[in-house]
Amino acid sequence: MTALGHHLLAEFTGCDAASLADLKGVTSAMLEAARASGATIVTHSFHHFSPHGVSGAVIIAESHLAVHTWPEHGFAAVDYFSCGFVDTGAAMAVLRVAFGATAMETLNLTRGPLGHPG
Amino acid sequence: MTALGHHLLAEFTGCDAASLADLKGVTSAMLEAARASGATIVTHSFHHFSPHGVSGAVIIAESHLAVHTWPEHGFAAVDYFSCGFVDTGAAMAVLRVAFGATAMETLNLTRGPLGHPG
Repeated sequence: MTALGHHLLAEFTGCDAASLADLKGVTSAMLEAARASGATIVTHSFHHFSPHGVSGAVIIAESHLAVHTWPEHGFAAVDYFSCGFVDTGAAMAVLRVAFGATAMETLNLTRGPLGHPG
Repeated sequence: MTALGHHLLAEFTGCDAASLADLKGVTSAMLEAARASGATIVTHSFHHFSPHGVSGAVIIAESHLAVHTWPEHGFAAVDYFSCGFVDTGAAMAVLRVAFGATAMETLNLTRGPLGHPG
């Protein structure tokens, strides 16, 4: 099987609460992460959760990069769906620094119909 | 552990190629799916892939609903990240009909730091 897409789920823990609550900072970090991965940015949308946190996504030509943050738990959930040649590791490295995370766990999934002949 | 978020990954196979290639149709289906789930839509962004397919996301107050389609394979990959009380099953039912899928496989993941006390 040849995967049609790759979906990286990343969980950042031990993050700096103020960084995760900063709408402008999270937006900038996500755009920088998308650029660091070599992706072509189409548009983006970010907003504050109530009562805390930031949520949003960067729509890229190669798919999407989304984040949801919980400052009160020092936690951020990221997912990067990609269908082209992008360096998702570079994107995660940018976010880890920007969020001040002490740890990151990732799960790499392939997306596509099982048995797709490739 | 109490999950902070839920992430539903869904793969639709045996879909109608014309439906998956229709930017306006996919956009309408995704917005209808978000509404069917009870989510509050913040904004949305959809675009054509090159050379085929549609990609995009609905940003909702409760998180995001994203899709990437491959008409040439009759395949669509969807993910619904939710942090509130939304009926993701209702959203998937709308998409299954809209895409003319003959089958759907789902993977339900919880998101949040392990050991989070809830």
